Amino acid sequence: MDFTSLIGIISGFGLIIYAIMLGSSDFTIFLNVPGIMIVIGGTLAATLVTFQIRDTLAAFKAGFIIFAQDKQNPQVMIATMLQITKLARREGLIALSRVEADSPFLKRALNMAADANDEDYIRKTLQADIDSLKMRHYVVQDVFKKMGSYAPAFGMLGTLVGLIQMLSKLDDPEAIGPAMAVALLTTFYGSLMATVIFLPIAGKLKARTILEIQTLEIIRDGTVSLMGSNNYLAVYERLSSYIPAKQRKLPTASDKGDEKPAGRR
Amino acid sequence: MDFTSLIGIISGFGLIIYAIMLGSSDFTIFLNVPGIMIVIGGTLAATLVTFQIRDTLAAFKAGFIIFAQDKQNPQVMIATMLQITKLARREGLIALSRVEADSPFLKRALNMAADANDEDYIRKTLQADIDSLKMRHYVVQDVFKKMGSYAPAFGMLGTLVGLIQMLSKLDDPEAIGPAMAVALLTTFYGSLMATVIFLPIAGKLKARTILEIQTLEIIRDGTVSLMGSNNYLAVYERLSSYIPAKQRKLPTASDKGDEKPAGRR
Amino acid sequence: MDFTSLIGIISGFGLIIYAIMLGSSDFTIFLNVPGIMIVIGGTLAATLVTFQIRDTLAAFKAGFIIFAQDKQNPQVMIATMLQITKLARREGLIALSRVEADSPFLKRALNMAADANDEDYIRKTLQADIDSLKMRHYVVQDVFKKMGSYAPAFGMLGTLVGLIQMLSKLDDPEAIGPAMAVALLTTFYGSLMATVIFLPIAGKLKARTILEIQTLEIIRDGTVSLMGSNNYLAVYERLSSYIPAKQRKLPTASDKGDEKPAGRR
Amino acid sequence: MDFTSLIGIISGFGLIIYAIMLGSSDFTIFLNVPGIMIVIGGTLAATLVTFQIRDTLAAFKAGFIIFAQDKQNPQVMIATMLQITKLARREGLIALSRVEADSPFLKRALNMAADANDEDYIRKTLQADIDSLKMRHYVVQDVFKKMGSYAPAFGMLGTLVGLIQMLSKLDDPEAIGPAMAVALLTTFYGSLMATVIFLPIAGKLKARTILEIQTLEIIRDGTVSLMGSNNYLAVYERLSSYIPAKQRKLPTASDKGDEKPAGRR
Amino acid sequence: MDFTSLIGIISGFGLIIYAIMLGSSDFTIFLNVPGIMIVIGGTLAATLVTFQIRDTLAAFKAGFIIFAQDKQNPQVMIATMLQITKLARREGLIALSRVEADSPFLKRALNMAADANDEDYIRKTLQADIDSLKMRHYVVQDVFKKMGSYAPAFGMLGTLVGLIQMLSKLDDPEAIGPAMAVALLTTFYGSLMATVIFLPIAGKLKARTILEIQTLEIIRDGTVSLMGSNNYLAVYERLSSYIPAKQRKLPTASDKGDEKPAGRR
Repeated sequence: MDFTSLIGIISGFGLIIYAIMLGSSDFTIFLNVPGIMIVIGGTLAATLVTFQIRDTLAAFKAGFIIFAQDKQNPQVMIATMLQITKLARREGLIALSRVEADSPFLKRALNMAADANDEDYIRKTLQADIDSLKMRHYVVQDVFKKMGSYAPAFGMLGTLVGLIQMLSKLDDPEAIGPAMAVALLTTFYGSLMATVIFLPIAGKLKARTILEIQTLEIIRDGTVSLMGSNNYLAVYERLSSYIPAKQRKLPTASDKGDEKPAGRR
Repeated sequence: MDFTSLIGIISGFGLIIYAIMLGSSDFTIFLNVPGIMIVIGGTLAATLVTFQIRDTLAAFKAGFIIFAQDKQNPQVMIATMLQITKLARREGLIALSRVEADSPFLKRALNMAADANDEDYIRKTLQADIDSLKMRHYVVQDVFKKMGSYAPAFGMLGTLVGLIQMLSKLDDPEAIGPAMAVALLTTFYGSLMATVIFLPIAGKLKARTILEIQTLEIIRDGTVSLMGSNNYLAVYERLSSYIPAKQRKLPTASDKGDEKPAGRR
Repeated sequence: MDFTSLIGIISGFGLIIYAIMLGSSDFTIFLNVPGIMIVIGGTLAATLVTFQIRDTLAAFKAGFIIFAQDKQNPQVMIATMLQITKLARREGLIALSRVEADSPFLKRALNMAADANDEDYIRKTLQADIDSLKMRHYVVQDVFKKMGSYAPAFGMLGTLVGLIQMLSKLDDPEAIGPAMAVALLTTFYGSLMATVIFLPIAGKLKARTILEIQTLEIIRDGTVSLMGSNNYLAVYERLSSYIPAKQRKLPTASDKGDEKPAGRR
Repeated sequence: MDFTSLIGIISGFGLIIYAIMLGSSDFTIFLNVPGIMIVIGGTLAATLVTFQIRDTLAAFKAGFIIFAQDKQNPQVMIATMLQITKLARREGLIALSRVEADSPFLKRALNMAADANDEDYIRKTLQADIDSLKMRHYVVQDVFKKMGSYAPAFGMLGTLVGLIQMLSKLDDPEAIGPAMAVALLTTFYGSLMATVIFLPIAGKLKARTILEIQTLEIIRDGTVSLMGSNNYLAVYERLSSYIPAKQRKLPTASDKGDEKPAGRR
Repeated sequence: MDFTSLIGIISGFGLIIYAIMLGSSDFTIFLNVPGIMIVIGGTLAATLVTFQIRDTLAAFKAGFIIFAQDKQNPQVMIATMLQITKLARREGLIALSRVEADSPFLKRALNMAADANDEDYIRKTLQADIDSLKMRHYVVQDVFKKMGSYAPAFGMLGTLVGLIQMLSKLDDPEAIGPAMAVALLTTFYGSLMATVIFLPIAGKLKARTILEIQTLEIIRDGTVSLMGSNNYLAVYERLSSYIPAKQRKLPTASDKGDEKPAGRR
């Protein structure tokens, strides 16, 4: 579980509920089922028109994924690529086709290396994969960004409807306040959903995409690099660019197996 | 029919009508024909100035197209390109000129391949076609995006006119509410049109453009790739970047005809 | 005359006048000469500071041009370039220097071709011309975009002045409404000018620039292409990327003169 | 003096003062020294945090420069580069090191040419200078753009403070209006400064940067071009891209000195 | 200490406190602990969802760093690179591995140069480091930019809650004002935090990133340049692009040690 996503959304709603309870013991005035339906329904309706149905469904699926543990870890992938470099050195590139890998991208990269394709071809093919993934993820983030702008827009439409109705019959001044309160509820719902759910989810999806692309780039650069030099240190040098200078530490001698000692840096 | 576009727009309006009926049985206060004319007319007028008349007409035509079934399907196009690769292998590149194709872009690509133009020339010419299509589609999306900003702007102008008139003669306090309600109607129309029609249509046109360009890129890469290697698997490797790793599956042996078996991956 | 620009602006104002007349027979409350002066004057003052005086004047001149007939027509230019290709084929590149052309850009391209400059030099020089034109046109569009944001800003400043004066002496409650109405007038003027004049003109200038650049690119690609192959069909293939696939039709045999028949496609 | 900047800012303030005098003879209600201090002080405080102190000071210095005459003139620089081409032709590249030049960039370019560095090295070094200048100027413009957004933000904060205080003690209804008027003053100051000073200055700095970069590009292209061909007409052809086609005219024969006549074009 | 950041934030708050004290001696009405909790808590909650927890923590750490003295100084780094060039000239590239350097990036660059890697490899590896740093810093700035938009959004949500509660029970008109004042407090807190803290910090982090990247680019270009030419003046020429023309001065002869005199320029 990625608890931060869950804690963030729950505490976001919790704080608003707390704000409501501060001012009044009557919670029911903030529950207006038709209002909620209008904002959620309208947002979904506009989203249906805006995107291909396939992209919308992919986005909803991705929306749940942010509560799952993130499996991308560039540091771990660098270690994996270094292990693979050692294997290639000991047993030759052909051995790469036998490596078990969860990531289909890594599997593909290793298969292409084992098939002795030339470096440039491998780089271009893997880059095409990365570009294609970037495009698909961009669309998924865009679904939530657009929902984050449709929700307040439908909230405002609901409020305008309420306002116009209230103003068109001002015969009972007593009723103005409560009618206005009800009218404002849809604006409240729309802003709440955008601020607590849609926009943060769009942000998290973007953050995860950045991490995933970094992991893929490590696979791409690692594979190309091990084909070129087949040297543990050279591959390490190449991949260490992906981590901050302070966190870089050369794997210990025992990790390196049959490599020459690297010395302190 | 692309039902999602239709369902989205209808349910968007439906929810607003539902919101109106919740608050009042009197639906007529929301019907103000001059107000509707001002917002629609003003939006059209500003759009006429903003774009070349040809682009505006092309956009309106494209606006209807979003209700039609989308014919672009990258997965199907990949299968088509693989079929064509088999044909080229069996009968030579010259056979490509006899392929029947709905897409003028595919027809053109195959003709150029059959005429034995060099790969680089084909890639550049097809890329020029893609860039030109991107540009034309961008303008069409821009028409709807601009309408999505002109509609609320004219809505606000209508409301300002109403407000100024109301404020300039405050002799009858009874009439303030209803006059204000009428004034707010154009803001309501403008926001409604932008949120339920113009901006979602602009979004859908963009989503379709992304898909169409992907299809064209598959044709471009497939054609160049089959000229270079004429090998079923190599073409498949190249094109599979366009689909998510999980959805990739190598065509079965029976599909491949005279190719060597590809093995499980 | 480009009637769409004229019709658009006139009908934009017409609809607002119609909106005014709907609500009241008294048109004079919307005429406030000092208010108009403040918004127009303020917009001009801020524009004077923002741009070089030369760019501002160029923009105003360009603003009138949008009412003139647009002379750029990519389709016609493609036909012209094909004619020129035929001439070059019959009489040699040297003949290109005798071609009469309205466009100084075409004249320049043909002169460079006639002087037997190498293709790469011609492409780069023409591209530098296109980039320089893009830059100048961008500044001109930017003048109107900025005016479209200064006008509402000065409108709001005028309204703030009116509001502050009204609020500072609330001794006569009767006068509040009319004073508020007057204060809102500048907001109305500012929004009106931005929505009906400045932003649409900026849009049209952009649309025309796109078309002009396309025309220049046709000249660039056509000139380079005829130097390379001197072949009618090859030049046609190259330039046809600039028009939608459906509108492409090979010129008829009679147009082509001494070319070999192209066959149906 | 660049009178347009001065006239623009003075007339911007003048029009607002005119707007104030229209509505009331009492000018003092718009003078609220603490309010002005809050908006100016707050804007400066936020700017101090946002930028390096060095960039902020550079920006203020640049802010005054917009009232000085602009010395950049691409047309004049083209003429200068043509003179220098003649000199190089008559006396050799070595003579370039003796040319007196105000611009350190031109001096540097000529020195590098005189030292017989290769064209590619000169182009790259000058481009690095241009990129570095672009970056510095961008930061300076950004200071004014940010001030243009901080000023209204602090204006709104001042108004919120006033509003909250007014609303918290509604015991004297008579005082509401004047208190509200005072509260609105900071919003007025913030918008006024942003619209009349900060945003236009940011715009002018951008306009001047465009012109300066164009001048530097003329020096870069001219220097590289004269090294390559040493031919007056070729250099002229290359540089004329920087001026609109209609304003191009070949220097007269007397200007050209020992060149061959260019003929009419 | 970077006093400008500290002075800026303190004086920003100080001016708002001054604004409060101007209007009233009662400071307590602006202190609403639950309101502050809602805005800060909500902003943190949305930020937790939006970013990876690691990035959020890195951003908070970076947020404090802006009060520390900035150690990046391009001018000093140019001087350092020139010293290193002299060392390399006297003792050979191998001596570079013995240079003590605080910056791990400089250390890495010198080690690669000492190992006699080829220039292109060094440039690419260092560029990968720079790109990776840019990406990480971009995320950190984005945390503060997003907090600068979440804070006002939660402020508005708090105000909507208060408004709706107030309007739903208008029985006591006396209480309207104070209730409204309390409701507006969260909007005030949200805007205050965004304008005085979050957005300026995001700006400063960006300004520092620009400076740090410039320093890294000086190391990159200096290292590559000294490998290529090993000439003091050539390295100086290359690096001087990073400082404004007016601040460039060639190091004095005594600084240059065993170089030939550079002459006046």
